[in-house]
Amino acid sequence: MTPENPDFHAQHSPMGAHSSFTLGMHHANSGAVSEKGSVAEGATLVGYRTASGQYHYFPFFEKLESEKDRYVSDENAEILPDVIFSKENIEREYLWATDKFSAPGIQMEVISPFDSIPDPAQASDDEMRFATCPATLVRLTFDNQSSEDWQGFFALSPDTRWTALDSDNNRQVIGGVSRDQLAVATTDQEAKSFMDFTHDTALDPDHSRPHFLLGQTCGLEITVPAGEQKELVLCIAYYLENKATFNRSSKYYYTKLFTDIKHVINYAMTEQGRYFALAAKRDEELSLRTDLNDEQKFLIAHATRSYYGSTEFLIESDKPLWVVNEGEYLMMNTFDLTIDMLFFELKFNPWTVKNVLENFVSHYRYYDEVFSPENPEKLYPGGVSFAHDMGVANQFSPEPYSSYESSGLDRKCFSFMTYEQLCNWVLTAGVYLGQNKDTDFFTRHRGIFQDCLTSLLNRDNPDPAKRNGLMSFESSMTKGGGEITTYDSLDHSLGQSRNNIYLAGKAWASYLIIHDLFKGLDTKLSEEAFSAAQLTAKALCAGYDEDLGFIPAVLENDNKSAIIPAIEALVYPWEFGSKEYCSEDGPFAQYIKVLKRHFNNIHNTDACLYPDGAWKLSSTADNSWMSKISICQYVAREILKIDLKDASAQADLAHARWQREGAKYHACSDQFTSGQAIGSLYYPRIVSNILWLKETC
Amino acid sequence: MTPENPDFHAQHSPMGAHSSFTLGMHHANSGAVSEKGSVAEGATLVGYRTASGQYHYFPFFEKLESEKDRYVSDENAEILPDVIFSKENIEREYLWATDKFSAPGIQMEVISPFDSIPDPAQASDDEMRFATCPATLVRLTFDNQSSEDWQGFFALSPDTRWTALDSDNNRQVIGGVSRDQLAVATTDQEAKSFMDFTHDTALDPDHSRPHFLLGQTCGLEITVPAGEQKELVLCIAYYLENKATFNRSSKYYYTKLFTDIKHVINYAMTEQGRYFALAAKRDEELSLRTDLNDEQKFLIAHATRSYYGSTEFLIESDKPLWVVNEGEYLMMNTFDLTIDMLFFELKFNPWTVKNVLENFVSHYRYYDEVFSPENPEKLYPGGVSFAHDMGVANQFSPEPYSSYESSGLDRKCFSFMTYEQLCNWVLTAGVYLGQNKDTDFFTRHRGIFQDCLTSLLNRDNPDPAKRNGLMSFESSMTKGGGEITTYDSLDHSLGQSRNNIYLAGKAWASYLIIHDLFKGLDTKLSEEAFSAAQLTAKALCAGYDEDLGFIPAVLENDNKSAIIPAIEALVYPWEFGSKEYCSEDGPFAQYIKVLKRHFNNIHNTDACLYPDGAWKLSSTADNSWMSKISICQYVAREILKIDLKDASAQADLAHARWQREGAKYHACSDQFTSGQAIGSLYYPRIVSNILWLKETC
Repeated sequence: MTPENPDFHAQHSPMGAHSSFTLGMHHANSGAVSEKGSVAEGATLVGYRTASGQYHYFPFFEKLESEKDRYVSDENAEILPDVIFSKENIEREYLWATDKFSAPGIQMEVISPFDSIPDPAQASDDEMRFATCPATLVRLTFDNQSSEDWQGFFALSPDTRWTALDSDNNRQVIGGVSRDQLAVATTDQEAKSFMDFTHDTALDPDHSRPHFLLGQTCGLEITVPAGEQKELVLCIAYYLENKATFNRSSKYYYTKLFTDIKHVINYAMTEQGRYFALAAKRDEELSLRTDLNDEQKFLIAHATRSYYGSTEFLIESDKPLWVVNEGEYLMMNTFDLTIDMLFFELKFNPWTVKNVLENFVSHYRYYDEVFSPENPEKLYPGGVSFAHDMGVANQFSPEPYSSYESSGLDRKCFSFMTYEQLCNWVLTAGVYLGQNKDTDFFTRHRGIFQDCLTSLLNRDNPDPAKRNGLMSFESSMTKGGGEITTYDSLDHSLGQSRNNIYLAGKAWASYLIIHDLFKGLDTKLSEEAFSAAQLTAKALCAGYDEDLGFIPAVLENDNKSAIIPAIEALVYPWEFGSKEYCSEDGPFAQYIKVLKRHFNNIHNTDACLYPDGAWKLSSTADNSWMSKISICQYVAREILKIDLKDASAQADLAHARWQREGAKYHACSDQFTSGQAIGSLYYPRIVSNILWLKETC
Repeated sequence: MTPENPDFHAQHSPMGAHSSFTLGMHHANSGAVSEKGSVAEGATLVGYRTASGQYHYFPFFEKLESEKDRYVSDENAEILPDVIFSKENIEREYLWATDKFSAPGIQMEVISPFDSIPDPAQASDDEMRFATCPATLVRLTFDNQSSEDWQGFFALSPDTRWTALDSDNNRQVIGGVSRDQLAVATTDQEAKSFMDFTHDTALDPDHSRPHFLLGQTCGLEITVPAGEQKELVLCIAYYLENKATFNRSSKYYYTKLFTDIKHVINYAMTEQGRYFALAAKRDEELSLRTDLNDEQKFLIAHATRSYYGSTEFLIESDKPLWVVNEGEYLMMNTFDLTIDMLFFELKFNPWTVKNVLENFVSHYRYYDEVFSPENPEKLYPGGVSFAHDMGVANQFSPEPYSSYESSGLDRKCFSFMTYEQLCNWVLTAGVYLGQNKDTDFFTRHRGIFQDCLTSLLNRDNPDPAKRNGLMSFESSMTKGGGEITTYDSLDHSLGQSRNNIYLAGKAWASYLIIHDLFKGLDTKLSEEAFSAAQLTAKALCAGYDEDLGFIPAVLENDNKSAIIPAIEALVYPWEFGSKEYCSEDGPFAQYIKVLKRHFNNIHNTDACLYPDGAWKLSSTADNSWMSKISICQYVAREILKIDLKDASAQADLAHARWQREGAKYHACSDQFTSGQAIGSLYYPRIVSNILWLKETC
């Protein structure tokens, strides 16, 4: 897995610390920072200085802040030009948990081991400590084949000030810490720490103080004698000890397990062997998948890194609290992301899915009324739904409101997503139950599922006789406006909720999951749900336009958009375990056949492919979400059994280039216009591509 | 006190909160922020919107982030052009505690009441609460003489997200808070709060949600009916609840007195009458000083604001801890600032002086050896001195070292200031004792004074027979380097310590204060100190060069620089209360006469005046410190009784322009090159000009 172009940023994050060490793009800022939805402002200086005074670096800085000319010790000495490794000299191996950079004389591995975060209700403190340690290990290898000694170095230079962790009397931990919350450190006793204005005022000092505290640069150095190899393992550690969230008070879970940042450093360094082994295991797992091409492996590894950067594992009144931040937007547990990240979380730590679902039930659930857009004044019974998110920038929003949704908007960005989030709760909870025997969860939330069915039906039409299987009524939360979907910045083809076939698919899946869950428990309800699914499927089949060759995105106003996500929701009954609903021979055979025709007819450059083979979710909008493409690829290939042939690999390359070229600064993004990242930057949601690992075709 | 040009930034800060609401410069960023040594990144939107949709603003933003065109409610409505008040339309009255801006239809007063911070050892919680409340009050007055209603508004727009403090059910406090630490709020029940992307997406919304939590703008609005006047008092509140300092753990003192930021807001709003009265008292005090010209009043008011912005009143293990940050540099209790701010702190809260002195004694005192620059290897007994500072950016440096001083530097920036800080402790403690009967302090630190005398003498020469009254030996802390003075970025005329006549003046004053303190207690020591003072005075008199007409700055190497601060140290015996030492008829008559001749001969544009009459501290360097000029002006006028005639007022105007033009962005700075601020920005030290209030001549 050697990307064709090594010049792109990647996040490297411990699990649940909402912190990232981001680097990889050349001549761009880089560094480590917590709770920021974008790349740290600063520089990462990694390289070596020859005894004769020449510096060699990876290009992990925007501009070289060097004061060498001013500080070089011997004023008569010739100043040798810097060597900044060029793209041609850098090799990058991008594995699932290891990001390895090689250049002449130096190799750097940034290691991001990940695994299940054990359920805190069942795991020991030791297990939790290993899972939550808020540090990222970096392994540097210097290979000095020259005839003079080198100083190998690694330094960060953000806009902060540092305190030395080591002193002449105590070299247990060597490195620097800023405000007790960010550290660059090692326990390798051969290393020396430095703090100064720049790395070269430290390595070519005009003074004799290794820790000059006015400087913003903090690093480690190690002597690499001529002709020798040296390895230096260091870590970047984080520790936010205070209240992490506002309006509801919580702290990072790791504060329960680590007393302070020194504890984190010591632990990470001591356990480095286990962490390296875990990373190697993950690396191998993905590498060995011969059924996936390298671009798919790249996309999975890239998405995984970006996901962990947004994760925030907290503790609130002694109870675990799982938050995934919405990348650059910093919204907390955005529900239309939760559902797409579901497959990843179910694979690694299903308890986080349950945690988020129950948080929505207890804090961000509401009951509304509904109205027909023709007569917004007349309100009918609506039902339950859930907020779009739980707040922003670690500030919980007033319950039960999201930070995002605003009333008074008619099918525009920031309107309510009542119908979509209603489906999302049913589908997320359903798939969770489908894959986990958690009867307690079902028992406690049985009433919610019932409420959800009522709510779904009322949004079709409060009058049962007038239902057609599609959403036609808007939530009173919009105050006369109109709901939107997660595709909030798209045109109506995917942006508006009512009569939308993407959402109709989610409703169909929701009905079926309710049907299955209540089978044998409440036959009437179960049957009612099944009938609703049939009605929806029927409406969608009827919507198929033989002239167009697809189901138009919105079944009203003569809409003619073709959208790929018509097929998206097949993933839910499939992952729930009721694959028969997705079969051409099953109870929804006609619907499945129609969807297959729909997809086959739009999977071309006239409708839903870009010229380079990348997927365009809607034929009428140049705005495509990578996370959603990933799901739809899985649905097309694995569920609908469509053989995409070479087009599939072509799309993978195009999508990988979206990330490496179009989002090279943003370390994995979701929303692209013609291959350029335009929003949803630094995003967690793309881990929906974990589904590819389940493909059997 | 109406400055000729209203276009400059000023800090507005509660006492001891290290927080500032900075604005005033036109078309520049502005706003409120804590613990930052520069202007907040953001915008302050203050103005009114007419019912027909036209916005009127003060220009307190760099660029108007307006989305009015997108969000204006009625798409057919004509969009009226914004009115951004121009310099000609803005009047600014700049009083000691009130900064008042007036423009057509609107007036804004930013009120920064200040008074003695009572000694926590003696004051009640109520008194402490009034003194430390971390809020700044803003009073807006709208005068709507038009025939349509206005919405008056005030909003901040930093890069953060907000939570509403009010809800439909609870309007006790109206406004918004960010992460529980920064709030814009009022208790005026006529006001409404808003949060949105920009002020105009809030005031011309396309949606109906007043608190849209994804936006970075938070503000208040009030209806001003046609033909009416309305007043709105609001506050900007700060609250940092966590550990404020690192390596030594402390919190803000106010956390002991206020439970949270709502408490702060309620208190500030409830006590607004007392705060306004206090501000008015301060305003009047300065305004009524007919002996000061308006530029002097401006400079005093400007310096005072900048000082409080840097103050940080903490509590460490139940004991008060006073820290003044070094403006943009954020160094903590930089000792060469402490001594210059002494006069201000002695006037308002002498206990803070004692607090800092004792902090230096217990944490940042060291004992060194000394060497002659000719033979750095040979070390002699040195003595006590003190670190340059106590740390940086709220991180205490390892004791007893400063964050600033680095060894191995020969008379260059960042070298040690051992001799100067030694003098500074004697002089600061001495003047404190001269003005406060604190026998306990003297008793406890009598040994330190004795150590200081020994240390001073050894730095002249460890061999008593070879002493000449001047510093000739360097501290071993420099490791073979050479010490510098507080004028660290100046040429050797003021930058190097040894044989420097500026420092010799400080030594002379130190000897005399020790002499006086020990009179009758330890005659031998007292006499030894007096003899040393005589020796120093004699050397300085002998240094007077009849050809040059002044004492050259450094009494070695044929130096020919003329420096004003030769006279600076007269302020210490004078303020100590021993004015006779500064008299032409006293025991140092000759020295005083020489200094007077020195000053008179260099107080001209050939040496130490800029063409516009501003003072140039050294004839050989275009680098002048406003704080030091202020002291020397006091010495020249009040102590040396030199009649500067019109030159004095001319200098005041020039210096005021340094701040208003050369440092207009930096809200009071110390270091200027040809009238342009080049460093020591956003600085507290200029409050040395409080001395002007003591002038009687």
